Amino acid sequence: MTEKSQALRDRIDQANKIVLNKLNESRPVWFDVQPAIEALPNMTRDTILHAGPPIEWERMCEPQRNGVAHAAVFEGLAKDTAEAGRAIQAGAIRLAPCHEFGAVGGMAGITSASTPLAMVRCEKTGAVGCSQLFQGPRGQLPSRDAYDREAAKQWRWLSEVLGPVLQDAIRAKGGLDVRAVTAKALQMGDECHNRNSASSLLLLTGLAPWLMQSKFDASMVRDSLSYLVAAEQFSLCISMAAGKSAAEAMKNVSHSTVVTTFCRNGVDFGIRVSGLGDQWFVAPANKVNGLLFSSEWNDDDVVPDMGDSAIMETVGLGGYVQAAAPALQQFVSGSFVRAKRITEEMREITTGPIDDYRIPNLDFAPAPAATDIRKVIRTGITPVIDTAIAHKKGGVVGAGQTQAPIDCFKKALRAFSERYA
Amino acid sequence: MTEKSQALRDRIDQANKIVLNKLNESRPVWFDVQPAIEALPNMTRDTILHAGPPIEWERMCEPQRNGVAHAAVFEGLAKDTAEAGRAIQAGAIRLAPCHEFGAVGGMAGITSASTPLAMVRCEKTGAVGCSQLFQGPRGQLPSRDAYDREAAKQWRWLSEVLGPVLQDAIRAKGGLDVRAVTAKALQMGDECHNRNSASSLLLLTGLAPWLMQSKFDASMVRDSLSYLVAAEQFSLCISMAAGKSAAEAMKNVSHSTVVTTFCRNGVDFGIRVSGLGDQWFVAPANKVNGLLFSSEWNDDDVVPDMGDSAIMETVGLGGYVQAAAPALQQFVSGSFVRAKRITEEMREITTGPIDDYRIPNLDFAPAPAATDIRKVIRTGITPVIDTAIAHKKGGVVGAGQTQAPIDCFKKALRAFSERYA
Repeated sequence: MTEKSQALRDRIDQANKIVLNKLNESRPVWFDVQPAIEALPNMTRDTILHAGPPIEWERMCEPQRNGVAHAAVFEGLAKDTAEAGRAIQAGAIRLAPCHEFGAVGGMAGITSASTPLAMVRCEKTGAVGCSQLFQGPRGQLPSRDAYDREAAKQWRWLSEVLGPVLQDAIRAKGGLDVRAVTAKALQMGDECHNRNSASSLLLLTGLAPWLMQSKFDASMVRDSLSYLVAAEQFSLCISMAAGKSAAEAMKNVSHSTVVTTFCRNGVDFGIRVSGLGDQWFVAPANKVNGLLFSSEWNDDDVVPDMGDSAIMETVGLGGYVQAAAPALQQFVSGSFVRAKRITEEMREITTGPIDDYRIPNLDFAPAPAATDIRKVIRTGITPVIDTAIAHKKGGVVGAGQTQAPIDCFKKALRAFSERYA
Repeated sequence: MTEKSQALRDRIDQANKIVLNKLNESRPVWFDVQPAIEALPNMTRDTILHAGPPIEWERMCEPQRNGVAHAAVFEGLAKDTAEAGRAIQAGAIRLAPCHEFGAVGGMAGITSASTPLAMVRCEKTGAVGCSQLFQGPRGQLPSRDAYDREAAKQWRWLSEVLGPVLQDAIRAKGGLDVRAVTAKALQMGDECHNRNSASSLLLLTGLAPWLMQSKFDASMVRDSLSYLVAAEQFSLCISMAAGKSAAEAMKNVSHSTVVTTFCRNGVDFGIRVSGLGDQWFVAPANKVNGLLFSSEWNDDDVVPDMGDSAIMETVGLGGYVQAAAPALQQFVSGSFVRAKRITEEMREITTGPIDDYRIPNLDFAPAPAATDIRKVIRTGITPVIDTAIAHKKGGVVGAGQTQAPIDCFKKALRAFSERYA
């Protein structure tokens, strides 16, 4: 090895440590709920955000395109979905990734002006991450990317009831420490992406005393509480916003090869890298291996990997801490040994540990975090992503695991070499 | 082996399977909270119940004796603790084990007429098990066996506020399925004796909608909710009552060598065996190995193994499912491998699995239950009990593990041979 390449390597290692350190120092606090138009600095009434890397309207997968079109109608930007399509093609309605507006969106990730967003601020850096609220308990309520009269009713309820009730409770409480919830939940079988049972209970318990003193009508509060009691995955939206607030601080560290974004739109898997700023590197999204919740569906009914929820793996949770959540192995007919092996493998492609996130099943070894694109290429090990599975017609119909496609990492490393070598 | 001894062995195996089956079929539902005088059929105003096997006043350990004396004063049976002692010696105040009155009591287990008890009924057999309510979050509130003005205030609060508020909520809800809570909690890192974080959250979540509609003053409900939010061990008292309701059904099966009671009074460890009815077999209680929560205490400050909470091990939880709760290894400087080994060892001294109680860390292997005194003697493996540690002056000051002394099993097996061989 030449002296010059050794110097570059040292410089990269140093930069990556800085990024890891930012992740370790992040202090995410859920402090508010606001409509996207108020929560996101660059949001406009004619913008519709979506999950994943940038994608043209024509290339979008069915649930995402349907979601965008219906959101345009819901926001009064078009009288029907056909008109919405024409307005988008004409540039009268702007499409953009949530990620470029300081937000993240689960599954199709459709976020329009009125969508209520959970807002999490990192107390250390001031960076804010936002996420749409969890759409509703599985099987009971339609998701944001399933479109019919019931869905529109549910969006209205989220805007007019749940959003305001949660806003009031979280403001009255004066914020909630998401890091503490995550750390505790890892001791309780959650990996905070596909399994959120403990974190959702912890959030509910944290909010309950404030819900009881809500300024809103008893019936609004009761409805919100019933939703929270039933929504075992509710906390994911708060964890995602927290992840986004941490990931914002990881960005733009010169010479760093650490990934600052993993996301997918059902067509492409996209990554961004700290030392390469806002540039996207994409490759076709993989199929998700897992369990479909009803025998009425099969593999032909679902879209490939979709959603911004891979922000959890970006910050060292989800698939990276599989060993903490052996219950999830039921989705993939796996075993505890397999779960442990995955976490050990993720250690090989990451920069170091998150000290506060410990895994009891590994004798309290810490979570591995800050994925290094060099290590992915060197080992051939690709990030494991826990994720839900979306139906082509919209809605969550299953859950399982997938892996990031290696081509994004190859493209990113090539760009990195061109820039820094 | 003679034909006769083979026939006896078969008969015992059959009897033990019946007992295990009763445990598998139990369906505990928390349905009420009532003062002991109303909850327990044979309770009288001049009876004071305590944890563990029967013990004379003079032999009681300090916190238990103090607890009894102060409870007598609290109930108006004596004007001071000296008079209480004389009344007990004169037989004017009756002492008895909780276990003989259909109840269980954590730590010293002091239960007097006004003590509010959680009541759990097995829907299959109708058997009712009762337990005093959890005394308060560790370090914040005194326990039932720590005695000063603050303690008396807390007992009054339990009787006048928490008891009635919980009674109202659980009646309004129409009962709560404790088996479902336990099964879920095992997926979330609880073993339901020393770790109750998940089950307490699940109970709180189950009660919250009903607390919100309480008939009581907002301030009473708010106080009760604050207590529940802070009391990570609250669910233990409900789990113990559920365990008792199941254990009642395990009793009195002719020829069965299965243990139906494990309990301790800080001096003696006592067991009862199904085929031997209500007879107690005792041996000196062991020291508890574990962590004291503050450096102000040391091993000389604490009493040996105490409390009826070993009802959890009686029904196959707690120490028996250590592998489900690796976080507890922190109390004993253990490891995940050690936790797994303990559960595997408990399999060697038990009759079979509890089908509904699964351990994700063991690829969903079921909990081992129904301890067979023959197997304990044959293998030399004694039951592992997770437990809190009590200070000599009362109150919980630590947590750890201990083992049942083998001498109780020897005595019981001798009695069994005399009766059946």
